[in-house]
Amino acid sequence: MSVTSQAHFKRVAIIGIGLIGSSIASALREYEIADEIVCGDSNPSHVQQALELGLVDAAYDDNQEAVEAADLVVLCTPVGAIGRVAGEIVSHLATGCILTDVGSVKKSVIEEILPLLSPAVHFIPGHPIAGTEESGPAAGFAELFQGRWCILTPLPDVNAEALLRLRSLWESLGAKVEIMTPDQHDRALATTSHLPQMVSYTTMNTARDMSDAFGMELVRYSAGGFRDVTRIAASDPVMWRDIFIHNREAALEVVEKFAENLGELKKAISDGDGDKLKELFSRASEARRKANSEK
Amino acid sequence: MSVTSQAHFKRVAIIGIGLIGSSIASALREYEIADEIVCGDSNPSHVQQALELGLVDAAYDDNQEAVEAADLVVLCTPVGAIGRVAGEIVSHLATGCILTDVGSVKKSVIEEILPLLSPAVHFIPGHPIAGTEESGPAAGFAELFQGRWCILTPLPDVNAEALLRLRSLWESLGAKVEIMTPDQHDRALATTSHLPQMVSYTTMNTARDMSDAFGMELVRYSAGGFRDVTRIAASDPVMWRDIFIHNREAALEVVEKFAENLGELKKAISDGDGDKLKELFSRASEARRKANSEK
Repeated sequence: MSVTSQAHFKRVAIIGIGLIGSSIASALREYEIADEIVCGDSNPSHVQQALELGLVDAAYDDNQEAVEAADLVVLCTPVGAIGRVAGEIVSHLATGCILTDVGSVKKSVIEEILPLLSPAVHFIPGHPIAGTEESGPAAGFAELFQGRWCILTPLPDVNAEALLRLRSLWESLGAKVEIMTPDQHDRALATTSHLPQMVSYTTMNTARDMSDAFGMELVRYSAGGFRDVTRIAASDPVMWRDIFIHNREAALEVVEKFAENLGELKKAISDGDGDKLKELFSRASEARRKANSEK
Repeated sequence: MSVTSQAHFKRVAIIGIGLIGSSIASALREYEIADEIVCGDSNPSHVQQALELGLVDAAYDDNQEAVEAADLVVLCTPVGAIGRVAGEIVSHLATGCILTDVGSVKKSVIEEILPLLSPAVHFIPGHPIAGTEESGPAAGFAELFQGRWCILTPLPDVNAEALLRLRSLWESLGAKVEIMTPDQHDRALATTSHLPQMVSYTTMNTARDMSDAFGMELVRYSAGGFRDVTRIAASDPVMWRDIFIHNREAALEVVEKFAENLGELKKAISDGDGDKLKELFSRASEARRKANSEK
């Protein structure tokens, strides 16, 4: 058992009240972690929904107003908007404020934010590995982070107390916290998140192409396997465009390995090489079963 | 509402009492479709389990004994064993018996079985599109076929009454029945079942490779997306080896289209072409959401 006392904040500003932002807001309220929870969002319908759903005490369409006097600011905008939004708010952050984000890539986010900051702000990049294929303020729920990893990628000169507080916050939200370098994070996530996303989108598009070629809607003749592999193909295209643009190098490294492995499988099918097929499938099956048993 | 009266059989012999065979046995009992349910399986532990679980009235390690006097024989062995097992039982089938199978490929199964048969047996190939990543007699359950498609691929000279009885049997088990040619079936399933399987195995193997390369177990830093895409990678390697060996042509056609689509995506990432990425992702996302809404 951890003996860390629960983090507490006076005013938390969530910038971008989509799936992750609204889940953080719900969890902060549920676990009584903040005296005041506010949000900023440039989308007026998000602002309105956040208020109607009772997610926050106040909601602003102006991010600068939202961050005033906050001791914690969480950037929850899509990765493609983080740099611009950070530029908007940076001169309005209170001294001693902790600034963090939830972006799915870390190197490019740090490159964008770091040059903008004053030393009076404690910037600690983060990424809770949690989500669903849904989006928007109504999609969030307080339990989203329970049992999930949250990776923090602090910079070498991080303020130790600020790091402890942020770590404790995520633990209070139910997450398991891991510290990595930004490069480790981006390569790990390219494998565990960006690869399945590419594969899921491409499986769905291939099924569309084959249906067109056959003049027959094939997807109806699918079972759990197809449904599972393509579930995340329903995810927001703009969010994922931004992630791939911002994690290009690591995503390419992984997809090239995947293409190489797929080529090996294709050759084994073409050759009718049953031993090779069994070897490839067994290797994957063992790894999946091992991962299942470690859950 | 269909007004088809429920099929009834005197003695149903299930050959191969794995996931599908045990699910059929359970459903036959649950819906009182057969006077007697028996099974044959060359694996003594399957025979014992089938009896211990109460799935059948009698279980044989000799398939020839199992099919004696049966008016319905369902071949539920792995695709790779169907030809051999059909050869064993064919001279022991009762006159007028309906012989069907549940194999995931149809052209090669028909090529193997057809030359063996006497005209007194009604052979109607079939494939219920249902399954889990589990296997064995204990994995089955009566509801497996509820709301699922079962594709029948009758030959041109099929006995109409036998086809009606088999169709009615699957409908009694809760399935929606579709009639296709064997070629249509094999190409449809290559897309909706064999492609996701290849993709799932290859994603898992790629994650293993990347973990090895990083010296770091990456799979723990995964969320629902990775888990869903790789769930079926836990599936039985031998079963899937046989399916790919027996549906080589159609599987290659689909995996080549997938590789082409993946190449297009890789190029868009490499070029930093946000418009192209959004276009590819939107196309997939629309198709997945459309499929969800039609469920």
